[in-house]
Amino acid sequence: MEAAKTEIQVKYIALSGGVGGAKLALGLEKIIQSEDLMVIGNVGDDFQHFGLHISPDLDTLLYTLSGKSNPEQGWGLANETWEFMSAMRELGGDSWFQLGDRDLATHVERTRRLQIGQSLSEITIYFRQNFGIGAAIVPATDDYLRTIVETDMGVLSFQEYFVRERCIPSIQNLYFQGSESAQITTELTKALESKELETIIFCPSNPLLSIDPILSVQGLKKAFVDSGAKIVAVTPIVGGTAIKGPAAKNLRELGYTVSASTVAKHYQGLIHGFVLDQKDHKEAKKIEKLGISVLVADTIMNDLETKVKLAEKTLRYANSI
Amino acid sequence: MEAAKTEIQVKYIALSGGVGGAKLALGLEKIIQSEDLMVIGNVGDDFQHFGLHISPDLDTLLYTLSGKSNPEQGWGLANETWEFMSAMRELGGDSWFQLGDRDLATHVERTRRLQIGQSLSEITIYFRQNFGIGAAIVPATDDYLRTIVETDMGVLSFQEYFVRERCIPSIQNLYFQGSESAQITTELTKALESKELETIIFCPSNPLLSIDPILSVQGLKKAFVDSGAKIVAVTPIVGGTAIKGPAAKNLRELGYTVSASTVAKHYQGLIHGFVLDQKDHKEAKKIEKLGISVLVADTIMNDLETKVKLAEKTLRYANSI
Repeated sequence: MEAAKTEIQVKYIALSGGVGGAKLALGLEKIIQSEDLMVIGNVGDDFQHFGLHISPDLDTLLYTLSGKSNPEQGWGLANETWEFMSAMRELGGDSWFQLGDRDLATHVERTRRLQIGQSLSEITIYFRQNFGIGAAIVPATDDYLRTIVETDMGVLSFQEYFVRERCIPSIQNLYFQGSESAQITTELTKALESKELETIIFCPSNPLLSIDPILSVQGLKKAFVDSGAKIVAVTPIVGGTAIKGPAAKNLRELGYTVSASTVAKHYQGLIHGFVLDQKDHKEAKKIEKLGISVLVADTIMNDLETKVKLAEKTLRYANSI
Repeated sequence: MEAAKTEIQVKYIALSGGVGGAKLALGLEKIIQSEDLMVIGNVGDDFQHFGLHISPDLDTLLYTLSGKSNPEQGWGLANETWEFMSAMRELGGDSWFQLGDRDLATHVERTRRLQIGQSLSEITIYFRQNFGIGAAIVPATDDYLRTIVETDMGVLSFQEYFVRERCIPSIQNLYFQGSESAQITTELTKALESKELETIIFCPSNPLLSIDPILSVQGLKKAFVDSGAKIVAVTPIVGGTAIKGPAAKNLRELGYTVSASTVAKHYQGLIHGFVLDQKDHKEAKKIEKLGISVLVADTIMNDLETKVKLAEKTLRYANSI
């Protein structure tokens, strides 16, 4: 097990869900030396489909940081083909979750390695090295952890809610199955004990569905605090709506006001700083009253340049707190 | 389980390996009413690859009888693409066994169904119905049965020998792992008890590597004899060589003379008739001395017409014995 052998001395840890968070993770990867960066991917979205183990957020990170991702949709691979899905539909298989022919190799190989007893961490190390990614990409836990959504259409797994039902059901409650016993992976534990660790960044991912499952792993929040690192969150809410995905809808359904300050308050006690979009500059005072420092910045990332700029600003800001 | 519910009244049972045998199976399928035909596929070639359960001979039968097969190579699907393999190679996966993108749906779906407890028989019923095949296609057994080849390059599984090593190693011995406890499937048992059953045909498949694994299933030979059906084998050896595959090389390595009469002798005590190619008409007497009736015919099947013709001749001949 590589993770067990190697001393891990990272300076920066980023937490990310899928597409939105991976944008900032890519910006960070461009400006941080590979060995100094570790990205934690959410595994609450993992699921079994066609008998295969699928890790959508880890894959989005792997594909994004390796430059393999489809730039239009943000998930999946560029130049993908869909013959497998076509044949699977003819075979009567579900077609609500699209697996491209090339993408499928990732799922088949991950499933095979899990079957022979490798951990998700070990497999992710193999994949990122094979994809030529220098930065570490890790699951927060190798244990079972699944985001479960209680909705007006019944209890759904994350992908059933997110992909199959297109986030249409109204969320009444959500929880992270397995979190009460899920342990932090060795790699992440070592990174959090690293004397070099300076900053932990919450990427602009859905706080409820992407960051919270990571934070639900046993002892992780405490390890974050104990690490002494500066903890900074980048807002996923701009102008009262989510840049991407159902975060605004989720917050509303669960009784929150949809605003950047709601997200900041959600992380209160854990984060030292919050990167607020310039559109929401009026919320700065409100957030500062929570004991959280604020940076107002342009947080919209449309291209590589804006990703890198936001990454630079975020790190400089964290350093200044 | 459909197999358990339905009364099975077949008139003809054919035994087949892969490409060569499937040619005659297709000819038989064209002239026999669907409900009257059952084809037994060899499962000694089955193996695990990329964590998937692959049944090459059953798939060749499914693809051939549904008209989905690649007409040039005889195995796999027509109009196949290879993006999965390309991505798998980049991931460092083995590339010696080619799985097409559409073909992969069959393996993924079969593996998923096995994992949830379905039998290979049940899955094969699902596939053939989904593919629109009326005739039954069945494994001889749902139990573990694997052809193992002892060679000058070590002990190999069938696919390692056949595909990865391209039949180059010299065979010293072969056996069928699991045959001592492999039981006949329900569907096949019922077919063998059918009062309608008239004829059992050994398609022109490799006697050692394709037909023998089928015959190694516990009690199958006895059930064949007890059924009272006429049993006829079609020669896979013409003019001292195999039409397809390594049968000639296998026979030679195991100390046999490579000839049609060697194959007839191999089946002695089990078959009543043998379809000999016209090229080998001089061997007829030798085979008749074994107590086996002989039909001399053109056994080369290059197109659908010749497949149908050989099927017609074989059935008419069996009926005449």
